[in-house]
Amino acid sequence: MKENKKKINASILIIGNEILSGRTQDLNILFLSNWLNKECGITVGEVRVIPDIKKTIKKNVLDMSKKFKYVFTTGGIGPTHDDITAKSISEAFKVEYEFHKEAYSILEKYYGKKNFNPGRKKMAKMPRTSLLIYNPSSAAPGFKIKNVFCLPGVPSILKSMIVNCKKFLTKGAVIKSLSVNLQTVESNIAKEITIIQNKFKKTVEIGSYPFFRLGIIGVAIVLRSSNKLKLNLCEKLVRRMAETKKIKYFKN
Amino acid sequence: MKENKKKINASILIIGNEILSGRTQDLNILFLSNWLNKECGITVGEVRVIPDIKKTIKKNVLDMSKKFKYVFTTGGIGPTHDDITAKSISEAFKVEYEFHKEAYSILEKYYGKKNFNPGRKKMAKMPRTSLLIYNPSSAAPGFKIKNVFCLPGVPSILKSMIVNCKKFLTKGAVIKSLSVNLQTVESNIAKEITIIQNKFKKTVEIGSYPFFRLGIIGVAIVLRSSNKLKLNLCEKLVRRMAETKKIKYFKN
Repeated sequence: MKENKKKINASILIIGNEILSGRTQDLNILFLSNWLNKECGITVGEVRVIPDIKKTIKKNVLDMSKKFKYVFTTGGIGPTHDDITAKSISEAFKVEYEFHKEAYSILEKYYGKKNFNPGRKKMAKMPRTSLLIYNPSSAAPGFKIKNVFCLPGVPSILKSMIVNCKKFLTKGAVIKSLSVNLQTVESNIAKEITIIQNKFKKTVEIGSYPFFRLGIIGVAIVLRSSNKLKLNLCEKLVRRMAETKKIKYFKN
Repeated sequence: MKENKKKINASILIIGNEILSGRTQDLNILFLSNWLNKECGITVGEVRVIPDIKKTIKKNVLDMSKKFKYVFTTGGIGPTHDDITAKSISEAFKVEYEFHKEAYSILEKYYGKKNFNPGRKKMAKMPRTSLLIYNPSSAAPGFKIKNVFCLPGVPSILKSMIVNCKKFLTKGAVIKSLSVNLQTVESNIAKEITIIQNKFKKTVEIGSYPFFRLGIIGVAIVLRSSNKLKLNLCEKLVRRMAETKKIKYFKN
């Protein structure tokens, strides 16, 4: 993976009626965001969940491809009628939707010539000029075209493939995060946290997240920055604030 | 809730850096989609997850407010510096961002005059002309302005409030769903399911979702329609196809 100390961003496009209908709990946003942030120093700027409609897929892929350095799509690259991601992206980028030779031979070998039916063959069709993202768990590869990475929707398969995206990515400045868990409510520290945030306006991003767990009401103050020094300094101020206000805190 | 037999759509806007950074697993998309679909006959057409940036919130709220009958936002209505949803939406709709009298008095009563500090007061500020969405669990109300419903990000609080959105919504044609779980792989039935989908082109939406659970590899064929007769007919065809191909199946 190439490296670049600058900020690099990406977006995620979840393609699938099953998420919009409330049938399926999405797990890919969390996994991809974590992987991109922690492994690659790539910030996720936006996520969209859209239905399996060709026009909608085309519009969103083009839109995100312009706005972000990388786009990751999930879903719609299987063998059935509702798997239309590869065809939609071919049309969006105005390139042929055709068999990818290597993908074809990987799948033919995996299923055997006799069982290589039209549904299975369909998984070897993708936009011309695509590069393969190998799939160690169920053979059918994902693909990369321009700055768009197309991955499957099944979380376990996606996870097994993600490492094969690395060689195509430029690593950005990794964002470190620290959190201080305060045993208080947000409205009791809002003023103080605002003052601290203003001191680190451009260097540390402070998030405030209430929680209720194990019978404890609290607020997680999450600090994120690519500058370790500023991050530690900012954390010290949060802890000092807690001590001044006699608020118990713990780190995790 | 008023009723209308037509299709009614909505979109969801998740506002929160914690989802994009991979810190927090989103649970609101699933809950809202389910509630809208099943309780209200409202189809979710799109979801976006965006960061706590005013310009981004404004652009997306305006965009979705035009494209969808209803918009549901989650997050950013608490007392801290990163809670900027209400202010951003005021600016988007070009109305004053000001204290809502009733919200102010609800919160003043809840916290007591003495403890009603600026952070807590902030939660009573919203776009002029907003209607309140009452909050039975932690007092701070959400609000509705035009076709936009603003709810908190904490799932348990959101859940406790959602019923109070009902009076503002028109109920659409409820989509029923049936699923047949086939003990096979997608590529073995892709052709047959495509033929069935083509028979019910405009009446039943068929989704195909591979699963691996309890040691069984299978495909859930999910049928969705507002027409019960067509739905049952379509299900019969899927079961007949399974029987013809000697594929075991079960319903759930």
